[in-house]
Amino acid sequence: MIRIAVDAMGGDHAPEAIVSGTIQAAQQAKGRYELVLVGETQKIEDELKKHREIQHLPISIEHASQIIGMDEAPAMALRKKPDSSLSVCMRLQKEGKVAAMVSAGNTGAVMAAALFVLKRIQGVLRPAIGSFLPHESGICFMIDVGSNVDCKPEQLQQFGIMGSIFANHVMDLKSPKVGILNIGEETSKGNEATQIAHELLAQTKGLNFMGNVEGRDVMRGVADVVVCDGFVGNILLKFGESISRMVAKSLKHEIGSNIRGKTGALLVKPHLKRLFSKFDYQEYGGAPLLGVKGNCIICHGSSSPKAIKNAIEEAFKMIEENINVLIEKQVHLIQG
Amino acid sequence: MIRIAVDAMGGDHAPEAIVSGTIQAAQQAKGRYELVLVGETQKIEDELKKHREIQHLPISIEHASQIIGMDEAPAMALRKKPDSSLSVCMRLQKEGKVAAMVSAGNTGAVMAAALFVLKRIQGVLRPAIGSFLPHESGICFMIDVGSNVDCKPEQLQQFGIMGSIFANHVMDLKSPKVGILNIGEETSKGNEATQIAHELLAQTKGLNFMGNVEGRDVMRGVADVVVCDGFVGNILLKFGESISRMVAKSLKHEIGSNIRGKTGALLVKPHLKRLFSKFDYQEYGGAPLLGVKGNCIICHGSSSPKAIKNAIEEAFKMIEENINVLIEKQVHLIQG
Repeated sequence: MIRIAVDAMGGDHAPEAIVSGTIQAAQQAKGRYELVLVGETQKIEDELKKHREIQHLPISIEHASQIIGMDEAPAMALRKKPDSSLSVCMRLQKEGKVAAMVSAGNTGAVMAAALFVLKRIQGVLRPAIGSFLPHESGICFMIDVGSNVDCKPEQLQQFGIMGSIFANHVMDLKSPKVGILNIGEETSKGNEATQIAHELLAQTKGLNFMGNVEGRDVMRGVADVVVCDGFVGNILLKFGESISRMVAKSLKHEIGSNIRGKTGALLVKPHLKRLFSKFDYQEYGGAPLLGVKGNCIICHGSSSPKAIKNAIEEAFKMIEENINVLIEKQVHLIQG
Repeated sequence: MIRIAVDAMGGDHAPEAIVSGTIQAAQQAKGRYELVLVGETQKIEDELKKHREIQHLPISIEHASQIIGMDEAPAMALRKKPDSSLSVCMRLQKEGKVAAMVSAGNTGAVMAAALFVLKRIQGVLRPAIGSFLPHESGICFMIDVGSNVDCKPEQLQQFGIMGSIFANHVMDLKSPKVGILNIGEETSKGNEATQIAHELLAQTKGLNFMGNVEGRDVMRGVADVVVCDGFVGNILLKFGESISRMVAKSLKHEIGSNIRGKTGALLVKPHLKRLFSKFDYQEYGGAPLLGVKGNCIICHGSSSPKAIKNAIEEAFKMIEENINVLIEKQVHLIQG
């Protein structure tokens, strides 16, 4: 049976939101997987008791006595707290007791623990975090969004490979179009790393590389996978999240400012809600950490139960599709 | 008398939109400045004839027989077309016949021509293009947005200095808060260039440096000047423009999809219009090229007459405030 660990203590709304989301996932697991809530047993049990009809759900608890805070320095926190819920999740995976882990905790600590405990997939230069970005007609996958700030061209090439495999097998996009984020359409554009990476990606067999993607093209959905270094990726991702929040806020303010606006607002509300749900990261699960020997999904700190549930389903799909075997093979191929 | 050259032939809607915008600016010049339309005399005259009551406006024409296309390779185009409207604008500035130029033409060509003809201000390592970005409570100034892809820390420091001077004197922001775009709040975050630039900016006298600005903070308006290299700046700027376009489009689609929505839409329309005008670059004039011995405003290729008019006013303010003298002094100070 496939088992997935869930870090019950990580995140702004832990353990409530995490336990709720785990229950939601368990209710729809239908024998596909079992879930292991990792953290302080008493607290998790107290949380579970708030819910009804959970006796027959495939949920167990694994005790961990420590918690790593959202703002703690990763390396130091991992050293000082060997029995943190996060470290226990990784250990369970390392020992083969679970096949994946989901955490809404400290992103840096998840990455550091994964690298330290699980190690890199052979041939992978640097693991990377991918994330979802909505566009006009769907969503695309941006990789890297924060773990690698200064990237060599060969690393960017691997991000493209890992992103393509994820988009194909987990997001169900057939022959996903891979583009590299750049400031112009021509091959000669961009900084040095991007120019060389462009060449490498163009030569990569099995990759549907479509060339440069400009800032304005991301939202047009020209690419399914957008390759970039973690510096620009992280800035773009956070900027995008904040823009949609700002538009929603301004809209509320503008519309609510007089009677005429209020009446209209009531009528268009369901439409606006649908529109903005498109920008809601919670719909899309969490951000996978690709390139380590394991399956790790990093959720937003403020994740709702729904986001946790979606992340668990995403982790299951990564396991089911053997993402890491595919990555190892493909990386080996280009290095061969 | 202050004279400003306007490249009549540059831009997607040239010469119509350019001539119209020039007329609008001339109508409100009230003796502050005179305008010189540069381009094919016959075409400009034909355009002017379409407008009424323009006899007494302070507009003259300077003939230029060639046009540089929007997609031409800058260096080659400038070499092949010495009598292009763009080159003539720069020459007029070099010769002191005008004090500034405005163009909605080929951005790369404007930059290359400015560097070649006007040269850098003494002490300036690299000229940079700044641009406006709306946020929750106003607008901020982002520099660089495209001319420099791989930046040294010292260049980023100078972008901060030039941006601060522009924000203070042209945008009328008192003691503008300068931040550096980064992926975390802590000083230790970011790529190598950003980390060192952070230190340099913190040491720069006369600068109101407030530290790192994350992607999500830009829209919150935490900084008046956002320093970044041209790679991330260009991507962010274009991404931002496209997001607001996408939201507007989706909103229209969502709202227009049924009767209830349509009725509501009619009522909220003026509010939406006001909201989206905030994201409209045309409200803010054009992007100044800072660091060259002259005043150059680069407008969006699709600039409307209003955008051209605002860019002319912006150029006038740059002249009036002696931006370049201030930049030279301040740059000299840090190098002293």
